[in-house]
Amino acid sequence: MTWQKAEQLYEGKGKRVFAIQGKSDYLLQEFKDQLTAFNAQKVAELGGKGELNCLITSSIFLFLEKKGVSTHFVEKLSNTSCVTKKLSMIPLEVVVRNIMAGSTAKKLGIEEGSPMSQPLVEFYYKKDELNDPFISDDQALLIKAVSSRQDLETLKKLALQVNEGLKEFFTACGIRLVDFKLEFGKTPDGQIVLGDEISPDSCRLWDEKTNEKLDKDRFRRDLGQVKEKYQEVWSRIQKQWSQYV
Amino acid sequence: MTWQKAEQLYEGKGKRVFAIQGKSDYLLQEFKDQLTAFNAQKVAELGGKGELNCLITSSIFLFLEKKGVSTHFVEKLSNTSCVTKKLSMIPLEVVVRNIMAGSTAKKLGIEEGSPMSQPLVEFYYKKDELNDPFISDDQALLIKAVSSRQDLETLKKLALQVNEGLKEFFTACGIRLVDFKLEFGKTPDGQIVLGDEISPDSCRLWDEKTNEKLDKDRFRRDLGQVKEKYQEVWSRIQKQWSQYV
Repeated sequence: MTWQKAEQLYEGKGKRVFAIQGKSDYLLQEFKDQLTAFNAQKVAELGGKGELNCLITSSIFLFLEKKGVSTHFVEKLSNTSCVTKKLSMIPLEVVVRNIMAGSTAKKLGIEEGSPMSQPLVEFYYKKDELNDPFISDDQALLIKAVSSRQDLETLKKLALQVNEGLKEFFTACGIRLVDFKLEFGKTPDGQIVLGDEISPDSCRLWDEKTNEKLDKDRFRRDLGQVKEKYQEVWSRIQKQWSQYV
Repeated sequence: MTWQKAEQLYEGKGKRVFAIQGKSDYLLQEFKDQLTAFNAQKVAELGGKGELNCLITSSIFLFLEKKGVSTHFVEKLSNTSCVTKKLSMIPLEVVVRNIMAGSTAKKLGIEEGSPMSQPLVEFYYKKDELNDPFISDDQALLIKAVSSRQDLETLKKLALQVNEGLKEFFTACGIRLVDFKLEFGKTPDGQIVLGDEISPDSCRLWDEKTNEKLDKDRFRRDLGQVKEKYQEVWSRIQKQWSQYV
């Protein structure tokens, strides 16, 4: 199939989204080099980051599709763009945690790196002007982020299914999957499928042996070597999962 | 029964708790005049506040018991103290909202005073040093605030039952019950019962006709006439519910 880029529909912090000529059910997503943290209070330009995230995301979505997870992914168009199905996005960030870290570690007074007896799924209301607040299931229903409790249960089930796939994927790369953020949307027939991206921008990834951070925390916490570590993740994926890259 | 005050066990922001001579299953709770807000960053002494809260709480707990809600309340001992069953407290603040206000209104970007289609129950982790953070059901289980999801469901059910009783109680007083905070504990045989207090310190109460605030928000927001409005609540209760006062 040929895909011809049409007008820009939306520019997010990490991607530009375009319509596709004559294909109203699809979108073209371009990955940006811009890196942001703390609700875009900290911003940097990192040459080549968009390409790395596009390559990593595409590999992961292909892998997840093979594992039976329904995603928006259609195909990689270039090293910085891909074609996806157009979804009606659910305004929730769905976070899965395997190891305690980040805002939840701080909030609950639990040391970063503490193991958890089972994965924790959290919902955050995706709304920049409110700073993406953490919300409960009941609050998600109150603000009508989804239309039913059943949808919330589906989101949790899918998030845990993605977690199982990602753990297999990253374990093979010698990487500990600490936590990650997902976004979901609905297809025109009402099915909830995985959207957005999965990359070192949206995951916490620690080297299995050294616990060295290989993700956006290098930028958030000024640890340096941001691009090098994203590249390291991509190199390991290429080596282990050549069938998907 | 006679109750003889023994050693002080604990001093909270609003109450002092004492053992009772020879009655290890009971406690004596003394209501303090101290008023605090914002996790005790704002503190004042308000002569007579302890008495008003003791009188109000005692009336409400008697009323709730008559409505079939199990509480820790045994009897009023003086105008500033009462005897309660000793509970193993659950470290959660259980908040019920009927009208949007306070931290949740701000967090979700909803205007204060907005009605809600159904009451919302929220859990906050009762831990001063963490600033009593809002938590989800899954996080409450993670930190072992309760031992099972069943306990969380029981807390929600009891909180909504208390809400029904309180709405009847305050409506009769010409007062709109906006929201309130409850604390629960377990009896030695494992039953979850209502503890703590219910007073203008722990509720948002608005005059039915004028929406004038009759609660601790007068202190939080420097509206003045704090004691007068607590007194107003007590006067209305005395008038409407003379059988419980």
